Amino acid sequence: MTATIQLPDLCASMADMATLADEYRKQRQKTLALCAPLQAEDYGLQTAMFASPPRWHLGHTTWFFETFILREFVADYQPVHPLYHTLFNSYYQGIGDPFPRAMRVALSRPTNAEVQAYRDQVDQSLLKFMASLSERDDDQARAVRQRLVLGLQHEQQHQELLLSDLLYHFAQNPLYPAYLESSMPVAGNAGALSWRAYQGGLTELGHEHSSKRFAFDNESPRHPVFLAPYRLARRLISNAEFLQFIDDGGYQQAKLWLADGWQWRQQQAIDAPLYWRRDKTGGWQEFTLYGLLSLQPDAAVSHISYYEADAFARWAGKRLPTEAEWEHAAAQSTMSEPTETLHAQCKTDADFFGQLWQWTSSAYAPYPGFQPASGAVGEYNGKFMCNQMVLRGSACVTPYAHARLSYRNFFYPSDRWTFTGIRLADND
Amino acid sequence: MTATIQLPDLCASMADMATLADEYRKQRQKTLALCAPLQAEDYGLQTAMFASPPRWHLGHTTWFFETFILREFVADYQPVHPLYHTLFNSYYQGIGDPFPRAMRVALSRPTNAEVQAYRDQVDQSLLKFMASLSERDDDQARAVRQRLVLGLQHEQQHQELLLSDLLYHFAQNPLYPAYLESSMPVAGNAGALSWRAYQGGLTELGHEHSSKRFAFDNESPRHPVFLAPYRLARRLISNAEFLQFIDDGGYQQAKLWLADGWQWRQQQAIDAPLYWRRDKTGGWQEFTLYGLLSLQPDAAVSHISYYEADAFARWAGKRLPTEAEWEHAAAQSTMSEPTETLHAQCKTDADFFGQLWQWTSSAYAPYPGFQPASGAVGEYNGKFMCNQMVLRGSACVTPYAHARLSYRNFFYPSDRWTFTGIRLADND
Amino acid sequence: MTATIQLPDLCASMADMATLADEYRKQRQKTLALCAPLQAEDYGLQTAMFASPPRWHLGHTTWFFETFILREFVADYQPVHPLYHTLFNSYYQGIGDPFPRAMRVALSRPTNAEVQAYRDQVDQSLLKFMASLSERDDDQARAVRQRLVLGLQHEQQHQELLLSDLLYHFAQNPLYPAYLESSMPVAGNAGALSWRAYQGGLTELGHEHSSKRFAFDNESPRHPVFLAPYRLARRLISNAEFLQFIDDGGYQQAKLWLADGWQWRQQQAIDAPLYWRRDKTGGWQEFTLYGLLSLQPDAAVSHISYYEADAFARWAGKRLPTEAEWEHAAAQSTMSEPTETLHAQCKTDADFFGQLWQWTSSAYAPYPGFQPASGAVGEYNGKFMCNQMVLRGSACVTPYAHARLSYRNFFYPSDRWTFTGIRLADND
Amino acid sequence: MTATIQLPDLCASMADMATLADEYRKQRQKTLALCAPLQAEDYGLQTAMFASPPRWHLGHTTWFFETFILREFVADYQPVHPLYHTLFNSYYQGIGDPFPRAMRVALSRPTNAEVQAYRDQVDQSLLKFMASLSERDDDQARAVRQRLVLGLQHEQQHQELLLSDLLYHFAQNPLYPAYLESSMPVAGNAGALSWRAYQGGLTELGHEHSSKRFAFDNESPRHPVFLAPYRLARRLISNAEFLQFIDDGGYQQAKLWLADGWQWRQQQAIDAPLYWRRDKTGGWQEFTLYGLLSLQPDAAVSHISYYEADAFARWAGKRLPTEAEWEHAAAQSTMSEPTETLHAQCKTDADFFGQLWQWTSSAYAPYPGFQPASGAVGEYNGKFMCNQMVLRGSACVTPYAHARLSYRNFFYPSDRWTFTGIRLADND
Repeated sequence: MTATIQLPDLCASMADMATLADEYRKQRQKTLALCAPLQAEDYGLQTAMFASPPRWHLGHTTWFFETFILREFVADYQPVHPLYHTLFNSYYQGIGDPFPRAMRVALSRPTNAEVQAYRDQVDQSLLKFMASLSERDDDQARAVRQRLVLGLQHEQQHQELLLSDLLYHFAQNPLYPAYLESSMPVAGNAGALSWRAYQGGLTELGHEHSSKRFAFDNESPRHPVFLAPYRLARRLISNAEFLQFIDDGGYQQAKLWLADGWQWRQQQAIDAPLYWRRDKTGGWQEFTLYGLLSLQPDAAVSHISYYEADAFARWAGKRLPTEAEWEHAAAQSTMSEPTETLHAQCKTDADFFGQLWQWTSSAYAPYPGFQPASGAVGEYNGKFMCNQMVLRGSACVTPYAHARLSYRNFFYPSDRWTFTGIRLADND
Repeated sequence: MTATIQLPDLCASMADMATLADEYRKQRQKTLALCAPLQAEDYGLQTAMFASPPRWHLGHTTWFFETFILREFVADYQPVHPLYHTLFNSYYQGIGDPFPRAMRVALSRPTNAEVQAYRDQVDQSLLKFMASLSERDDDQARAVRQRLVLGLQHEQQHQELLLSDLLYHFAQNPLYPAYLESSMPVAGNAGALSWRAYQGGLTELGHEHSSKRFAFDNESPRHPVFLAPYRLARRLISNAEFLQFIDDGGYQQAKLWLADGWQWRQQQAIDAPLYWRRDKTGGWQEFTLYGLLSLQPDAAVSHISYYEADAFARWAGKRLPTEAEWEHAAAQSTMSEPTETLHAQCKTDADFFGQLWQWTSSAYAPYPGFQPASGAVGEYNGKFMCNQMVLRGSACVTPYAHARLSYRNFFYPSDRWTFTGIRLADND
Repeated sequence: MTATIQLPDLCASMADMATLADEYRKQRQKTLALCAPLQAEDYGLQTAMFASPPRWHLGHTTWFFETFILREFVADYQPVHPLYHTLFNSYYQGIGDPFPRAMRVALSRPTNAEVQAYRDQVDQSLLKFMASLSERDDDQARAVRQRLVLGLQHEQQHQELLLSDLLYHFAQNPLYPAYLESSMPVAGNAGALSWRAYQGGLTELGHEHSSKRFAFDNESPRHPVFLAPYRLARRLISNAEFLQFIDDGGYQQAKLWLADGWQWRQQQAIDAPLYWRRDKTGGWQEFTLYGLLSLQPDAAVSHISYYEADAFARWAGKRLPTEAEWEHAAAQSTMSEPTETLHAQCKTDADFFGQLWQWTSSAYAPYPGFQPASGAVGEYNGKFMCNQMVLRGSACVTPYAHARLSYRNFFYPSDRWTFTGIRLADND
Repeated sequence: MTATIQLPDLCASMADMATLADEYRKQRQKTLALCAPLQAEDYGLQTAMFASPPRWHLGHTTWFFETFILREFVADYQPVHPLYHTLFNSYYQGIGDPFPRAMRVALSRPTNAEVQAYRDQVDQSLLKFMASLSERDDDQARAVRQRLVLGLQHEQQHQELLLSDLLYHFAQNPLYPAYLESSMPVAGNAGALSWRAYQGGLTELGHEHSSKRFAFDNESPRHPVFLAPYRLARRLISNAEFLQFIDDGGYQQAKLWLADGWQWRQQQAIDAPLYWRRDKTGGWQEFTLYGLLSLQPDAAVSHISYYEADAFARWAGKRLPTEAEWEHAAAQSTMSEPTETLHAQCKTDADFFGQLWQWTSSAYAPYPGFQPASGAVGEYNGKFMCNQMVLRGSACVTPYAHARLSYRNFFYPSDRWTFTGIRLADND
């Protein structure tokens, strides 16, 4: 069976600078559009070290273009502000000490307007520089195009992060502000969980480096793997199904949990997904970007940690898929074009992408023969290859054009502020 | 020698409601005026658990009047918002669980405008209620007047806190924003440190409860104490003097420090006052509400912990005064009217009040026969009478009319974000 | 009324070296005798940073004599082992970095036998040195005698600490080993709590420095204090009385607690005195040096923190005494000679000394004119004069001859592994 | 090329109970023999939560046999002590709450003699029970034999742990006690590092479940994996080679480290392997079970974390092997019989086993189709399959008969108190 899934590709269609400039304007504008529903006061929110303020996202994505294109390729470029280089550096040790992550909340200055001015200045410089390269196809022009595509992928990642972080920040406020005041789409009937069997055997995993399609360094090289026959659930696990786990005392039975997960659960007194809240009658609500709502039984269970996903799978007598299984199966799926929304649903046979990132049982590690990108951008992915688990697919808040069959997302097993969910696997 | 110091008294002149209403409008307006130099983004800043966001101060002072007057005395009063009662409660357990202190930073909502609306609504209700009581002098009217005066004292405390907290928040930002762009007044020549001797003997300490002047419950009862003869320095310690302590290795000699202070110093790698920074040439700068400036040798050393004040005193072969000595001496001082400024100076014989709070060697404890105020406002002072040290006087950022001879300020020995300084004492 | 209390005095009767040598042998032997009930394995126990292993106590008390007498006064003295100077130093920064307190548990070597050999060698050297001074009464001989008396006081403190620490260590073991297998004396009937009134007025506090009686530096100078009339309970609070506090929800009412105490209670989930345990039927047991026994209602409540003592007093509508009140009252008491036992009782009019250390409401601070002893022994007391509260009296495990009217014991308000109890005070 | 490595097999030769009983006596005796050099005081040492006291190891290994054989298979078995079941349970939640790991240090009781008596009683009961089954080959007899083999493997693991833990405990004591007073064997010349190339391709990994040889559940099922061609170093990295990394500033260059490793290094101020110490002249010493000795340049670098091993490999331009590569290569090696020693050497072509556990780049995860053993012993391995890295081979302190080609050891990437070392890999 051949791969029938169709995903967009930012890279393939960007041979020329003019197209890239259009895409640049579009993505930069989209980031701003995502901020439109915010109040001025929301831009500074940082309620946990792992989640950044919206204003910082706006500055950091700009810093990325300034640092890795303007400062690197434009002779005599004058940075917009000498300190922004430090303040908006996330974790790139190769270019100086980043400002401490936990203290991004301290940066009431630069203000919203000043950060906007920073964006504007960098955008102008960059578009001007792109224009100056439009007729060229030499090494430098190619290098710049490559960086631009990388920068746009990076901008898209932060579009998603901005929403994930905001949801987390708003959840700390007892007023439970809604990001969007409109009403949330009602989840369709999830239906019974059904399975599809896959043959296995010797197959290939990862991104073909020589391909013209864009991929991060961590998705290559494409390499052979051997898979035993396996089965995957045709859809994500629903809230109703996860509720059975809770009602069966799943959070209280040590035998269902990894040792580290059990400790995490005990120390943090975890007994439900991150955004579930009890209402006054004991029923469940879920906090979403649409506000605090009654839990929809047919929506996909989301914002759960690897530990919870793994415990649920064990309770269900199943397991989580490896990333090789996941990619192998996803490649054989058909897929209708997803719509970007703000909350996940369960759609049989249609949710490899566009609903929730799916925990795999694979630790995030280099593929055989992995080479990190050279220079400071080589810190993008490689240095995190320890202690984290791979998630596959994409979420409802992931920019559609950002999804890729070979995409490897990664988080710590206790993380759950990302839009994560569960797809079960089983041996055949 | 009789007491010649003249301090204002909010209370004495407030026999009637009209005067109180004027004072109310004035103090409430002054709090807003202190926020005038802020950017909208600054109102949400909280960079340490002990320091609150400006927006929270604005809400909390309003909450105080709403909770302890409107909700308590006005029949059928409808609170402005059901959740504000929790969100803006600082630490009053008697009226429900306060919102966690460390999470005030999460409250981007209510927004600046919404908090302003809260202030406006409470102000209107309160002024209307005051007007309704203007002709009365019954028990309730007296109780309300008393609470109003307490509320205004409370508002003044937060006027000072707002500035202390802001200085701390801004100091965490490498851009070192200035609260006020105008230039800082230059400190006059401090002159040599001179001393004044006091006789001691049996004297009295504290506020006379039957007095018509206002005082917090912790300043009473007035009671006899016996003092040995002692001497007090005529002015605060200057930066130049503290620099000698540093240059002499004062921060590195265990023998100069209390055991707990030494541990604090080591664990937090303390080697200078809180806002001192080295410039690139190794010289000292000080971050102030006027921005990051060259250290003024003749200004009073400020923002030091009790541990540092105590170590400095030991290094100097002196000691810190007890609060009884301090009050006894201050009562015998003459005093020119201080001006509220944003940075402390050293003014011989003139700085018992209006420059810096002065650490005493007295632990904060109840005076003999102390009775906390009844009801939830009894939590104002009494429950903190452990582990903290008394500071006396007032600071340049303390509202002038807030200073009192018997005023007992208190902080933990490691605290130093308040405007604190050193006055030395010695045995005669 | 004159002071009628009779306490022993180690110092007065020690004019000559021979007497001192006898006392030295006696105290050193007593320390060993206290270890007689231990198993070899018990000597290394350290289950909390604040409590030391018995073996370390044996080494440290020896180190004290070696360091402050042999090394300081004996020419060409060769220390027993070069590293013991560091390993057995508790907190004297003036003579080098002490081995980290929390790591005393790591010292399985020197072994019990090696530490015993250390004791023997130092004892021999010291007794020989004392003999060599027996005929002299020059400055050095007097200085050595002074240090010997200090060292013996120090040895006695560690006799008590050894028992307090052991009780703590044994309490962590679910086997609940009894230090002494014999049965605990039954507490006599406590009787109703009665009060005695004291006149107050100008009185004196502290130890007369010119006295020939020994006292620590922190007990001087004797100085005037003014006391309002007050009343003291005639006996300590009993377990039965404390049980009423518990049964009345005392541990659950924020209003009864100091703010820091409430936080301590919540964070550590405290709801009973340190060694109280529920038995299977819900009744109370108490772990003692005699093992885990049924709670004796008439025994004195012990092993409580300052926070608990303070909350109990507030619940009872009373308060804790100041140290001046305590000393003033104790000086007027008659006292039968206490017996050293291993568990406290309540004995009306007889328990100023010999049952439990009694929390006072006085923070541990220098008396007016306090001068620490010179040299490294000056670190003994002075550097702890912050954040701790004074306890007065002595406990059942305190060596009888160690008690003094002016004795100032001190602990942090959260400490409760010492033998502490409650005596209430009230205004007249 | 066929597998030429010859490792012993405990299981194959244990078809009958008599052989098993002999092996039981031998292993139990060996554990005691390892304790022979200890002082009585050493048995209680626990200087870190992860490392247990020798006495606890003695009790826990006994508990394992009592719990999983005597209590499970012997009708009417009376446990030796009701509380030992809790005290000596390491982490088996399925049979009740284990005593907290960090508090094993509190257990001075049961004493050495009491634990020895526990061992004796269980040994007698067990040998008697084994004798009673000697003629049987029914299901129960087979189940018991299986558990016995498991228990002996477990005993062997603790023989190694006992030495690793002791080394750690002794290293915290400034006296640096030697476990063995005899002198350490001198490391032979390591020689230049050379490489061997392996073909790769589709191969198999893991233990054949149907085999008669013993293996833990985590080593199965044997399954196909595809390997690209690769090269492995013929020996472990030597101290001299690691010293070059240090001297080149390897610990100070962020770019060489995984992000989590860099944070670990900074927070813990790591700048050398765990047991390296500077002598007074700046030269390096290493603390070993033979005491504190000059660093041997030709010995294998040991006691390093995964983070350090990974950083070293990156510095050297190489990488760590995957566990599949390691097993594939080891299977093709010849091996002389190793001697159990107390410190690791580098021996070209001979150190897949018997010198140091070798970090692989593989996260510890279930093999495809993994099934944990049923019952509480299923907690042995499976629940740790997250956040840890696989180590392969065996160490000089590993009982020789405990090594296996398919053995999967696992530790957290920051752990380094185990005898760990570095074997480099490279792509072909």
